[in-house]
Amino acid sequence: MLKEVLLCVLTGVLAFTVGILLGHFATDKGGSVPDWVRDASRDVDESIIKTFLDELDTNELRENLRELTKVPHMATSAGDEGTVQFLLKRWQDPATGLDNAWREDYKVYLSFPDKTNPNKVSVVNPESTVLFTAREREKPYTPDQEDPEVVQPFAAYSPAGNVKGKLVFANQGKMSDYELLNRTLDLRGTIAITRYGGAGRSTKAINAAKFGVVGLLVYTDPYEMNDGLVSESDTYPHSWYLPPTGVERGSYSIDFGDLLTPYLAAKDDTYRIPKEDITGIPPIPTQPIGFEDAEKLICELDGDDAPDDWQGSLNCKYKLGGPGFKATSSFNNSNVHLDTYNTGRLEHSANVMGIIRGSVEPDRYVIYGNHRDSWVHGAIDPSSGTAVMLEITRVLGKMVKEGKWRPRRSIIFGSWGAEEFGLIGSAEYTEEYFSKLSERTVAYINVDISVFANATLRASASPAAHGVIFTASKQVDAPGTTLSVYENWMQYSNRTSPNYGIIPNVGFLTGAGSDYAPFMHYLGITSMDISYYYDRTKTRARIYPAYHTAYDTFDYASTYIDPGFTSHQAVARTAGNVLLRLADSLLLPFNCTDYAESLQRYLSEAVTTFEQKLAAQGISMESLKTAVKLFSDTASKLDRLIRDSDLANETPLKIRQINDQLMLLDRAFLDPLAFPEQYGFRHVIWASKMSSSVPTFPGLADAVEKAMSTGLKEDWDQAHKHISIVTQAIAGAAHTLDDVI
Amino acid sequence: MLKEVLLCVLTGVLAFTVGILLGHFATDKGGSVPDWVRDASRDVDESIIKTFLDELDTNELRENLRELTKVPHMATSAGDEGTVQFLLKRWQDPATGLDNAWREDYKVYLSFPDKTNPNKVSVVNPESTVLFTAREREKPYTPDQEDPEVVQPFAAYSPAGNVKGKLVFANQGKMSDYELLNRTLDLRGTIAITRYGGAGRSTKAINAAKFGVVGLLVYTDPYEMNDGLVSESDTYPHSWYLPPTGVERGSYSIDFGDLLTPYLAAKDDTYRIPKEDITGIPPIPTQPIGFEDAEKLICELDGDDAPDDWQGSLNCKYKLGGPGFKATSSFNNSNVHLDTYNTGRLEHSANVMGIIRGSVEPDRYVIYGNHRDSWVHGAIDPSSGTAVMLEITRVLGKMVKEGKWRPRRSIIFGSWGAEEFGLIGSAEYTEEYFSKLSERTVAYINVDISVFANATLRASASPAAHGVIFTASKQVDAPGTTLSVYENWMQYSNRTSPNYGIIPNVGFLTGAGSDYAPFMHYLGITSMDISYYYDRTKTRARIYPAYHTAYDTFDYASTYIDPGFTSHQAVARTAGNVLLRLADSLLLPFNCTDYAESLQRYLSEAVTTFEQKLAAQGISMESLKTAVKLFSDTASKLDRLIRDSDLANETPLKIRQINDQLMLLDRAFLDPLAFPEQYGFRHVIWASKMSSSVPTFPGLADAVEKAMSTGLKEDWDQAHKHISIVTQAIAGAAHTLDDVI
Repeated sequence: MLKEVLLCVLTGVLAFTVGILLGHFATDKGGSVPDWVRDASRDVDESIIKTFLDELDTNELRENLRELTKVPHMATSAGDEGTVQFLLKRWQDPATGLDNAWREDYKVYLSFPDKTNPNKVSVVNPESTVLFTAREREKPYTPDQEDPEVVQPFAAYSPAGNVKGKLVFANQGKMSDYELLNRTLDLRGTIAITRYGGAGRSTKAINAAKFGVVGLLVYTDPYEMNDGLVSESDTYPHSWYLPPTGVERGSYSIDFGDLLTPYLAAKDDTYRIPKEDITGIPPIPTQPIGFEDAEKLICELDGDDAPDDWQGSLNCKYKLGGPGFKATSSFNNSNVHLDTYNTGRLEHSANVMGIIRGSVEPDRYVIYGNHRDSWVHGAIDPSSGTAVMLEITRVLGKMVKEGKWRPRRSIIFGSWGAEEFGLIGSAEYTEEYFSKLSERTVAYINVDISVFANATLRASASPAAHGVIFTASKQVDAPGTTLSVYENWMQYSNRTSPNYGIIPNVGFLTGAGSDYAPFMHYLGITSMDISYYYDRTKTRARIYPAYHTAYDTFDYASTYIDPGFTSHQAVARTAGNVLLRLADSLLLPFNCTDYAESLQRYLSEAVTTFEQKLAAQGISMESLKTAVKLFSDTASKLDRLIRDSDLANETPLKIRQINDQLMLLDRAFLDPLAFPEQYGFRHVIWASKMSSSVPTFPGLADAVEKAMSTGLKEDWDQAHKHISIVTQAIAGAAHTLDDVI
Repeated sequence: MLKEVLLCVLTGVLAFTVGILLGHFATDKGGSVPDWVRDASRDVDESIIKTFLDELDTNELRENLRELTKVPHMATSAGDEGTVQFLLKRWQDPATGLDNAWREDYKVYLSFPDKTNPNKVSVVNPESTVLFTAREREKPYTPDQEDPEVVQPFAAYSPAGNVKGKLVFANQGKMSDYELLNRTLDLRGTIAITRYGGAGRSTKAINAAKFGVVGLLVYTDPYEMNDGLVSESDTYPHSWYLPPTGVERGSYSIDFGDLLTPYLAAKDDTYRIPKEDITGIPPIPTQPIGFEDAEKLICELDGDDAPDDWQGSLNCKYKLGGPGFKATSSFNNSNVHLDTYNTGRLEHSANVMGIIRGSVEPDRYVIYGNHRDSWVHGAIDPSSGTAVMLEITRVLGKMVKEGKWRPRRSIIFGSWGAEEFGLIGSAEYTEEYFSKLSERTVAYINVDISVFANATLRASASPAAHGVIFTASKQVDAPGTTLSVYENWMQYSNRTSPNYGIIPNVGFLTGAGSDYAPFMHYLGITSMDISYYYDRTKTRARIYPAYHTAYDTFDYASTYIDPGFTSHQAVARTAGNVLLRLADSLLLPFNCTDYAESLQRYLSEAVTTFEQKLAAQGISMESLKTAVKLFSDTASKLDRLIRDSDLANETPLKIRQINDQLMLLDRAFLDPLAFPEQYGFRHVIWASKMSSSVPTFPGLADAVEKAMSTGLKEDWDQAHKHISIVTQAIAGAAHTLDDVI
């Protein structure tokens, strides 16, 4: 009996124990921990990234490009409207589209030549006989180049006018070029011919007018575009080089955004400044021409031999002087006549916007943008980038529609209009949604031209984002190699970092060359610009040679730039990988120590170049040094805090707090009053420099150089002021990285 | 046996079941739901608020005030340093102090009279005999008024100089006052005497100089300060009214912040503009005097009778004209001599900062501030407010030190320096920490003078914060009544709201009268200013009569302003309750629909006053109407979202998202380029108006009125531009209230 009782008790104890264990472990605890606790701490999913990378398809990329480049699609043209509809169709596709897509129109000030009255460049002798007329159209080699919608080459925003005068060669149209000519020559009443490069398009004309020049021609010298090749047989369609009749179009304006509505979104009823008040555009008629025509003019000029650095690849010695044609020329005593009929017009330009809603932090945006408008067919600029964006949205859209994925943060895609006229679509967008975007945007990824050439990745970015570009590029194979995009990149362009050793060299976004400018400079959003590029050691080309010409077509792109579309794919994979990491990472993949390293580089350059000169004026750089030190210290501290955190088990608010510190880091460098003469530049570290070429804090560099040239006390005061401005910005940014209270 | 087996099985089953139940319910599930899940969703605790309100003690308030007012404590004086040490001691107290407290010094430009060479106002006849000299000090009635540290009355920032001329009465020194005089009089070379009120202190002098006036006297007319009472027996120490020799000191500067370092924190090595470049200060020597002395001058003046609205309570008919004294006066043919010896000096001024770290969202700040510096003893201005702040920190500090409470969000207390010279301490603070404060500050509560008088609460605030002030004031008893502070308030000042019916009237923060200005106008932080005030129907006093005089002492405050310190207590309870709600509420107690109502009021005023005039110029207000409509719609939408949410069970990130929308609402109205002529004003809705008195959008009102007076096309253009600026700001703010994506 005792045995039975014992057995029974034992059974009972055992049953009791098993019961407790089952009760504790086997009943559902899910109800007590809300689902969002897990969602909130979920990190980027590497298998999703792998799937995404695998799905990006070269055939889709090719077909995107083919469709986008069927007709010319200059901003606000019928072709442009066609691309608007195409984008909308793709982004509203039920199987591969985005959550939502729509268009947003702005009424913007554009400039066009007169189709019925084309701009004319001619040589006219004293008897009024026309001895020469420059081509009005580029010579067609393929049927699409014969499209009547191919716009005549012109200088957008240059005024209409009829001017004539003796011709003079003015190299690149820099101030120093005109000054050199001006030593021996009266430039008043002349027409100048300049080559692209060295100075901004519009700057060449603004400088010229200061010397009394009445009209300006601009051409592309084969030296810096064609590696010296000039003959038709060496150029497209026989190679990637620019044919002799090719002409680079472009916007001849310095400021970005709609020129009539500074700092205001160009809605229908927005106040517009008088057209006469527009600054930064040519004050004199200006017209670009091809180098075949330029040669006919330049090689007939009179004068002494120009300096070596003025020489180019046209078939003669370039002359300094004249003005006018040499005595032995059939053009002797003739004037150049320049007749331009450009008109400014208000037109509606569309951005196409598309979104994928974030699941955990919908109020955090990763923005990915590319402009849609071209000068002609724009196969490379910008459609190579549009093709990439559409392929990224196809793959992501499909994953969303199939319920396989939804990003942690929201993703906004922007297809910007009228970029070619001065980043207008993106600038108006940032003006209209200034507050919302400032408050919520994590990053802006720009892919304009995605493939310049097929050698290597090229990236420019805020230092905060260098790391995520590296991470992404390490996961992508470089086409035509056995290396990763990262390893391949490092072979073409690298630098030695004190923290990492040799790493790829990422540029800084100091200019306004594409739509990143309103985001980086005006909004202070951590931005990046990504593309595939050529081997700098193999060519002197300023850019891919068909740039802004009628030759930038599907044939050109698919024959000479990226035949297999593998470079397109590599960019899609790299930029798309960056996009996914920014959208899905629990902790934003931004690095503030890398930012500190960049500030130290800038400081070191400033100290080397300027400290003695400033000290001689009694101006100290100590406050700036202290601020950079403070930034470095607080950056290290935040890095340590991140490293020491068990992120997956941290509270969502703690993660959000750190993410806000990282997201808003670039914002902390904004000062809307730092650069009163430069439209839209508010980021005191990366703003475009006015004149200095020293790679350091822009306001300081420009101010010191100006003070050195004038010697005026008030200019040295400005240098001191810029030390205080940048010191306060850096110290202010440092405070945002420190303990939050 | 079967029975035993059955029993045993039954026992086992029972044991098993009990085990399961115990296992499920009796073991600790706390581990599975992290603590922070509960913390993150905890709302404001009403019992904590009740405890807090109960602890605020009138005796403590009285003793704070007594200690703070023992000696004069003008900015950067020894007395000021004494208050710095007192604040630090209190905030670092182990039993009742804050988590941390420290001082932050700025090197700021102040202006002082010369102790050894006092400013002089005299009447001198042609034979150089001095016939009259104004008092250099106010007549003392209590020992503390005899303190040698009582600063001579002076006009801070008015220049040193020795000028003389015929005296002329110029009423309030408005442009219209000088224009009226100028019709019949040559003001060049005269000395003008003006009364306080109607125009800013400095503006009286700037206006005067435009007409050639060489020196300015300013006095307080008993009409608008003493309800007409002028005799010594009717004034302090016999009542709250200003004694005949009392002189209002003040800063004669228009801009706020350190005048030498605009937009830069005034650190030791910050760039300083040349003193000659300071704008907004008197161009001519200026000196304030008492009405006893003013009467001796004004009543001897020659001329016709001045208009009725120029008359005051001095014992004579005020004259329009002269210039100079009447023939029957002993001063006939005499000049007034004004000799000022003020000097500008760089001095270190301290802010004292103290913090209580937030537990859940430490990166969100509620800032509570009060200035510390006075002109003399400053019992009411500002020490009544400092006494309140110290009592609030004592009670909160004690709760924190005893582990009974810690706020959800961080609380920052600021004891600002050099406010009297132009909000300098608070302005420098906002300049130095611009980014951090912009990103994280939920609200700023200003209590400068806490008790002007003991009739009723007075509050001015961003519309977002009206609701929380109402909530708080309903929970506090109004001293001397059976009503709540809210009910009592409504009896003194109310309006009819379309949404709520009759409610207390809350003012808007449209000026720069205290330290809320840098927060509201420069940073766009939702701000409020709270005090106890007098019954407007019982007195015409511009302000409490001892304002900025040597009579603003502990005796004055405790005898005439708030004998029982119950009004101090009511303000401490109301402002402290607001502070606790802002710091602890799960959802920020801000209301965007109330904001919409205010915008509608402004729009309606603008339409009534300006629409026809604008239409006559072809300028439409439709875009502005559409923007206000959009704002109202999105505000209602957000309100609905909040109402429909089960906040206690929402994810912390969802709550944070809504809180960010509410926190950043005022920020969305900032435009750093909207008011280029007004230092630090960036909030396009609440900025100070330059000239207009229409209660509507300031840039629009000023621009339309200017255009109406000049009739110039370019001025109407500016009106159109301001419609676009305010339209874009309101629409931009509306976008931030809309669905986050």
